[in-house]
Amino acid sequence: MLVTDLEAIRSSILAPDAVSAEAARSRQAQLTKPLGSMGRLEDLSVQLAGLRRDPRPEVDRKAVIVMAADHGVVAQGVSAYPSEVTPQMVLNFLAGGAAINALARQAGARVSIVDIGVAADMFTYEGLLHRKVALGTADFTRGPAMTAKQARAALQVGIDVVSEEHEKGLDLVATGEMGIGNTTAASAVTCALTGRSAAEVTGRGTGVDDAGLSRKVAAIDKGLAANAPDANDAFDVLCKVGGLEIAGLAGVIIGAAVLRIPVVIDGFISGTAALVAVELAPEVRPYLIASHRSVERGHQVVLDYLAIRPLFDLDLRLGEGTGAALAFHMIEASVRILNEMATFAEAGVSGKED
Amino acid sequence: MLVTDLEAIRSSILAPDAVSAEAARSRQAQLTKPLGSMGRLEDLSVQLAGLRRDPRPEVDRKAVIVMAADHGVVAQGVSAYPSEVTPQMVLNFLAGGAAINALARQAGARVSIVDIGVAADMFTYEGLLHRKVALGTADFTRGPAMTAKQARAALQVGIDVVSEEHEKGLDLVATGEMGIGNTTAASAVTCALTGRSAAEVTGRGTGVDDAGLSRKVAAIDKGLAANAPDANDAFDVLCKVGGLEIAGLAGVIIGAAVLRIPVVIDGFISGTAALVAVELAPEVRPYLIASHRSVERGHQVVLDYLAIRPLFDLDLRLGEGTGAALAFHMIEASVRILNEMATFAEAGVSGKED
Repeated sequence: MLVTDLEAIRSSILAPDAVSAEAARSRQAQLTKPLGSMGRLEDLSVQLAGLRRDPRPEVDRKAVIVMAADHGVVAQGVSAYPSEVTPQMVLNFLAGGAAINALARQAGARVSIVDIGVAADMFTYEGLLHRKVALGTADFTRGPAMTAKQARAALQVGIDVVSEEHEKGLDLVATGEMGIGNTTAASAVTCALTGRSAAEVTGRGTGVDDAGLSRKVAAIDKGLAANAPDANDAFDVLCKVGGLEIAGLAGVIIGAAVLRIPVVIDGFISGTAALVAVELAPEVRPYLIASHRSVERGHQVVLDYLAIRPLFDLDLRLGEGTGAALAFHMIEASVRILNEMATFAEAGVSGKED
Repeated sequence: MLVTDLEAIRSSILAPDAVSAEAARSRQAQLTKPLGSMGRLEDLSVQLAGLRRDPRPEVDRKAVIVMAADHGVVAQGVSAYPSEVTPQMVLNFLAGGAAINALARQAGARVSIVDIGVAADMFTYEGLLHRKVALGTADFTRGPAMTAKQARAALQVGIDVVSEEHEKGLDLVATGEMGIGNTTAASAVTCALTGRSAAEVTGRGTGVDDAGLSRKVAAIDKGLAANAPDANDAFDVLCKVGGLEIAGLAGVIIGAAVLRIPVVIDGFISGTAALVAVELAPEVRPYLIASHRSVERGHQVVLDYLAIRPLFDLDLRLGEGTGAALAFHMIEASVRILNEMATFAEAGVSGKED
């Protein structure tokens, strides 16, 4: 799969299989519960059946792909933490001490950590996927964040990484990220693609104060004015105000759809990557499962634009794929309901009275 | 623990331990994430630390207690399913084929099925806890659903069952139920205790049509008029329009609080049991964790009255403890975050910039 041939990629993404989905829907009606009483879990099982082309899908093999990258725009004072935290957190991921490690262990999911653009030498880090495209993006207030070549390379990294995960065996993949400054890039991308203003989209990220929030909004306004991204060209938007991890995750989403793997989207950054992926390849849309609604206000803008309803809202705002890892339990529950429950006939339970 | 000495029970329920809670809160601030970024999971870990009186609580040992009972008011045509479904579903629980079995297996939780009032002979059922108080309640449109003696016995069953679970080792307990007609009883109890009308509280339960819903509202109105339960006396309300499983679950909740076990509340019936428990022993209130918001409209009335915010809303309306079993994953996540994550100092990660 080469991102340079996007038309070929798009044409290889299959629509959900209606026969498998209908078989799952029909089975849900025979299980020992009132039809619909398991609510969204029933719909989720039907979605999974269609995507996996299997009336009784399994979700045993799960992975979280965490893309790490830095952002030149941090020079504008947009983050509460310094850029050095990005490589430090990568080390923490590799040592198993971050939130995503704890939650992926709980969910029985693999975690794949990808250096797609950390602004530090990471070659000695073992267990890290070394796919660095650049030492972070350029400061988009002064010009494009990435060259077209870099953005394409980052998309390709995502496609490649999810393909490698697929070769290990994969039923479900989650998107995660780490990158100081990446809510600024995600906000800028969201503004450019949805037409909403920076003031409407921008939140506090890891926790900037009022002055930091003002700098963040100003930097996004400046970046959009300086680069004039084309709202109808997601690739142009990605290059001009995006991020390497956002591009990488968009690649993961596109690659997963080709491989018929449902993608569990985490919070705002992942949601922005999904937005870019859907704009580049609308065929990926049915493969998305939104896990949670983030505190970061731009996330609601993205969810509304994608017309996708998240499974829960626990006031999370960490990223890393943490909300998506939590959603794995809900998704597993949906297929356990479908696969493990007895039918009315099997259990000898009377049906509804007319 | 004898329910006949409620004062002794109430005085033995400890308030959450502020020292353990504060230690957990302080640790959350040192973990490698922006403080508060794991949202409600952080609060949940602090709540658990206080209740378990342990700054690093564990939730490995979990049980769902499912109380099954029948309802005389079913004679008024209030349910979409016949009463024979109650014993049939008990058999299904025992065979492991119901939704709660699938979801408890996923969560690594035991399931304890209690016949507290099924209107059928169940003595030959193996694996069932035989604690039948009566062959279902009486039809409350014609008089009290239970005698005071029956309601006390049912409360005691709940206390006894949760005590037995505690003896096996228990960190967390969930409430579940099965009983054709029990949304009618729960609606009547909710009306009586909150002062809301039957029209505001009553929903479709397992799925009655418009005519069935009208019969249900009429039966509740008739039951409340016929019995005139005292809104300031939850025990009186329980006797007059309650159910054996509602009483049993109220007993579970009260017993759990005495034993310092947090209780995960499922949907509307369980919520009504929590309402009764809080009215009988207000000290149990901090021990409650609301799992989900049910489709059944009365549940929101109960949640508002208890001023408790559920963790998620997946449009569930099955009961059995299914929503509570799903919440086990969220609760486990909250303690994994607390217990497994590295601190900033341990991981060598820089803190927030001032």
